[in-house]
Amino acid sequence: MPRKVYLKLTALDEARRLWLEGFSQYALGAEEVPLHLAQGRTLAAPAEARVSSPAFHGAAMDGAALAAADTFGASERRPLALRVGEKAFWINTGAPLPPGCDAVVMIENLVPGRDADGAETVALEKAAFPWQHVRKLGEDLVATEIILPAGTVLGAYELGALAAGGVLRPLVYKKPRVAVIPSGSELKPLDEVTPGMLAAGAALPEFNGLILSALARDAGAEPTVLPIVPDEPELIREAVSAATLGPYDLVVVNAGSSAGSRDFTPDTIAELGELWVHGVNIMPGKPTALGRVNGKAVLGAPGYPVSAVISFEEFGQTLLARWQGREIPPRPRDEARPFQDLPSRPGTEDFLRVKLGRVDGRLIAVPLPRGAGTVSSLSRADGLIRIPAPAEGLGADRPAPVAFLRPPSQIDGALLAVGSHDQTLDLLDSLWRRRDPGRRLTSAHVGSLGGLTALARGRAHLAGSHLLGPDGVYNRAAVAETLAGTPARLVRLADREQGLILPPGNPRGVLGLADLARPDVTFINRQRGSGTRVLFDRRLRQIGLEPAAVNGYEDEEYTHLAVAAAVLSGRASAGLGARAAAAALGLDFLPLDREEYDLVIPERHWDDPRMQSLLETVRSPEFHAAAAALGGYGLTRTGQVVWTFEG
Amino acid sequence: MPRKVYLKLTALDEARRLWLEGFSQYALGAEEVPLHLAQGRTLAAPAEARVSSPAFHGAAMDGAALAAADTFGASERRPLALRVGEKAFWINTGAPLPPGCDAVVMIENLVPGRDADGAETVALEKAAFPWQHVRKLGEDLVATEIILPAGTVLGAYELGALAAGGVLRPLVYKKPRVAVIPSGSELKPLDEVTPGMLAAGAALPEFNGLILSALARDAGAEPTVLPIVPDEPELIREAVSAATLGPYDLVVVNAGSSAGSRDFTPDTIAELGELWVHGVNIMPGKPTALGRVNGKAVLGAPGYPVSAVISFEEFGQTLLARWQGREIPPRPRDEARPFQDLPSRPGTEDFLRVKLGRVDGRLIAVPLPRGAGTVSSLSRADGLIRIPAPAEGLGADRPAPVAFLRPPSQIDGALLAVGSHDQTLDLLDSLWRRRDPGRRLTSAHVGSLGGLTALARGRAHLAGSHLLGPDGVYNRAAVAETLAGTPARLVRLADREQGLILPPGNPRGVLGLADLARPDVTFINRQRGSGTRVLFDRRLRQIGLEPAAVNGYEDEEYTHLAVAAAVLSGRASAGLGARAAAAALGLDFLPLDREEYDLVIPERHWDDPRMQSLLETVRSPEFHAAAAALGGYGLTRTGQVVWTFEG
Repeated sequence: MPRKVYLKLTALDEARRLWLEGFSQYALGAEEVPLHLAQGRTLAAPAEARVSSPAFHGAAMDGAALAAADTFGASERRPLALRVGEKAFWINTGAPLPPGCDAVVMIENLVPGRDADGAETVALEKAAFPWQHVRKLGEDLVATEIILPAGTVLGAYELGALAAGGVLRPLVYKKPRVAVIPSGSELKPLDEVTPGMLAAGAALPEFNGLILSALARDAGAEPTVLPIVPDEPELIREAVSAATLGPYDLVVVNAGSSAGSRDFTPDTIAELGELWVHGVNIMPGKPTALGRVNGKAVLGAPGYPVSAVISFEEFGQTLLARWQGREIPPRPRDEARPFQDLPSRPGTEDFLRVKLGRVDGRLIAVPLPRGAGTVSSLSRADGLIRIPAPAEGLGADRPAPVAFLRPPSQIDGALLAVGSHDQTLDLLDSLWRRRDPGRRLTSAHVGSLGGLTALARGRAHLAGSHLLGPDGVYNRAAVAETLAGTPARLVRLADREQGLILPPGNPRGVLGLADLARPDVTFINRQRGSGTRVLFDRRLRQIGLEPAAVNGYEDEEYTHLAVAAAVLSGRASAGLGARAAAAALGLDFLPLDREEYDLVIPERHWDDPRMQSLLETVRSPEFHAAAAALGGYGLTRTGQVVWTFEG
Repeated sequence: MPRKVYLKLTALDEARRLWLEGFSQYALGAEEVPLHLAQGRTLAAPAEARVSSPAFHGAAMDGAALAAADTFGASERRPLALRVGEKAFWINTGAPLPPGCDAVVMIENLVPGRDADGAETVALEKAAFPWQHVRKLGEDLVATEIILPAGTVLGAYELGALAAGGVLRPLVYKKPRVAVIPSGSELKPLDEVTPGMLAAGAALPEFNGLILSALARDAGAEPTVLPIVPDEPELIREAVSAATLGPYDLVVVNAGSSAGSRDFTPDTIAELGELWVHGVNIMPGKPTALGRVNGKAVLGAPGYPVSAVISFEEFGQTLLARWQGREIPPRPRDEARPFQDLPSRPGTEDFLRVKLGRVDGRLIAVPLPRGAGTVSSLSRADGLIRIPAPAEGLGADRPAPVAFLRPPSQIDGALLAVGSHDQTLDLLDSLWRRRDPGRRLTSAHVGSLGGLTALARGRAHLAGSHLLGPDGVYNRAAVAETLAGTPARLVRLADREQGLILPPGNPRGVLGLADLARPDVTFINRQRGSGTRVLFDRRLRQIGLEPAAVNGYEDEEYTHLAVAAAVLSGRASAGLGARAAAAALGLDFLPLDREEYDLVIPERHWDDPRMQSLLETVRSPEFHAAAAALGGYGLTRTGQVVWTFEG
């Protein structure tokens, strides 16, 4: 297995410049499409009005059309009657004025009648002035004027303007066609995979094609996912050759571009055409390859989903937009303060996914897992922080630019809950959004103590906490100590059962904490500062068991579900956590404690309408029912203020 | 023709409340769709992970899987060799670890070899630690956890997270179905209309259905435009009855809801079901009717396109979003200073379309035509200013809230040109956008003098001007007088021919300005302060003709093309304007003057990168060629600084 080395990483801007310049002469071609199929398409040339709108002088009101000169002298005292069909003409809004007419009198200002000859008349009590209530020819658009410039993406308003100007088949760019070639012998097409196969580890589903197709559509392109190609240089070469000779403008080879053993894409590009870039100084996304084969753009995108996304957004979408002469609007930006120090390796530009909340006017950024495989870090992220290549990282609380992945209103509609994790928080978020669209509960899991510290530093709106105090009472001692000077209320979210999470059937016969000292039992611990860890350490002391005697005491996870997952996978044979987590994964549960999980809410956020709306959801029957269904929760005091801390 | 009166206008908020509450129990229903068809759909229930991701401990790198415990003691001096297939296993990124393994060593840290028995080995120079380079089971998602809450609109990232969590057929809301019933005896379907028919005034095209369909799609709905219904109460009743008994969730009756003579929709709703609202205090959009027929929502939307759009956005899109539990993100907002006083009738909330430009850090709002029929006022607008119902208007320069219709970056990328209109400005905008995506030249037409005044007040970045001075020189005198204290440069855009625009063939035989005094000749004038008006008045004085002697002197238009349109329509038999305008509409042209059209650019905006980029476009061969093609332009000095004003 020979090893590939990146000869030289190219800086992102330089790589993009090479890529865009390399295809600056590439032409997509254009086509005329009828308006009802043109939504979302991009004008390939300025659209010039073919007719004026209106194309004639038309009535702007329902009433009578007439010549203003015929009405001079009319007054309330001396109403003027005009014969209908001769001097006045009934007219509907939008209809062309009869010849000789230059004004419309509204129907409510006309008195119908008959003249001496019995002919129909209308009487006016006021003279009309010329052009009153008339939509003049060309008032909206004059023939030949430019309605919309080239590069305009056609939305509802634009379609209307084109229709008004008689541009019934606008000239738009042909949709760029994108082929995605997934490569990897172990991959299975998503539509051949069942959840059962996934759970059994029997299939690695290919879903980057799905994600990249959606991103291609967002950029106005038409994607095709080609069949999966096994990791054989010859087969990849054949696939790239065929795709670049086919109808595609951009060919994306996904995976096979890491610097590992199966790195065939760059070689393929170099052999079949020109390889311009191999390796970009971004993370995730480093193993990107860029080049041209048979005149077509070929992008080698890394295999991990987050890497593939960033690579495709930076190079694929940019090129597709440029070809259509349209702009991908930059994401809204702001400055955010990192919740914690964010280290970074100098020499690469780090793309960090973060959750965001605006607390006391300051935007707080809580980092999500960095792994390029955690696709949920994209769907959960509110924003993206880039750490420039030369930097060694960003310091906590030092403002850094952040690009929003959601509309700013959604960031501002969110409450940031930092603290202990509990599954009911996710439930609460889901129910709250439904009850009050535009709201969201953004939660980050740093343990109970971390949450209280965050509150004290103004880095969260609320914190979930279940810290057993030395007095045997939950949360009060820790709040009093941590939040000195910050009055707050404790609202009970739920009582919950904590206990040992064990493999199904409890094969090792673990009957209590004392058994964790047995050599055949491996424990998975929670991180320092979490309520569960505090509880565990306290119970260990009570039974006189040394931490060192617990096999796996140093192995930590950050959530109840992660602990349960560790037990399920056999990584550990016991963990401490909530019953709901054990139930979720079908594991055994040995109850040890009934603990109190509270929301700690600083007084200054109490009257925030978002907070009151959230608390209404906490107290709603829907939340009660959904939390009860999870199992292991006591909900009798849910939503009650259980303690007020004076600060 | 009996007349309808609004009994009582309902305030917008109250009307929306009635409407949304009336349908709060209406259920769209949900369906499972495969992921590759789910882009843009809305989750009807929280999506819970069906499998963990990864579903097993997997390799995060290419290399060898092994048990960390087997590697203790390995060092550079004493490399440790492990037999492949026994203690070490070649593994590719993403593959599950073999049983007993808990770590991966990267391929570049392994030395292949053979042991004494000739078996394949890999040697390590460093011990592995447990779980290194391993993606643990559930690292991304743990089975049962909520991946995404209900109401989430599925984009690329969300599709990826669902795939990772094994949610291969998410439960999404059925697409709400919207029927649009266009009513109006005079309307013709858009696909039966040709530009020729439009130009001849032989057809009123029905295009609101096109616009409302696009807006419905934007709100996640599936629109159908039903056949046009003539203005007969019975036929409208039949159409509404059939549609509400059909598969549609929302039925929009377009037109027929004005208070004019053909106002059948409210009566229809009242007769067939319940009419909740008739008349909302918004302008445009007042004749909106809201109610329920056969359990379905019925919206009577006014006939003018801008009214229909505002009515549909406020009531149609809002209801569609609410049904899907999703939010229509509010448009980005800012404060803008009106370019001029904006009067408003107290009692109605006015929706004003405006162009926007950020000048010296202040956002300037230039109003577009208010007419509800000017659909181009939507496609040209950058923002929307609402004048609250009680207000009598907004004062010039007093900051007022504005909602952006474009991404803020496009507003900030724009230069605001206020001044004289010339067709080459539209050309310039179109070419500039193509050369430098993200830029736009926003131009507003207030005449040359108005432009210079705007520059002096900091309300524009640049102004187009062609003011003939008393010295016979263009622009310098006016700039010196108006911009005292504001240094500026004059850049030639073009020389252009001004002259009399006459009907084709010049039927009245107009041979010069003197003929404008003839009783059979009607003139169409330009507004005071425009360069053309200054030129006209000066030439009249030179030949000793009194303004009062010119028939139509008081009838004013604001652009060259509007003057040409007035001549084309027979509203006037002569106007003064540029040759290009006459050529555009196929009119005769009698040249009188060669004038100098300059861009006036204050010194402090000169080095703005946008301005330099714009000037590059002015000097480009593409602009030269396109302007020459319009006819009547002299381009020898185009792009040159013709004068520098020291202030």
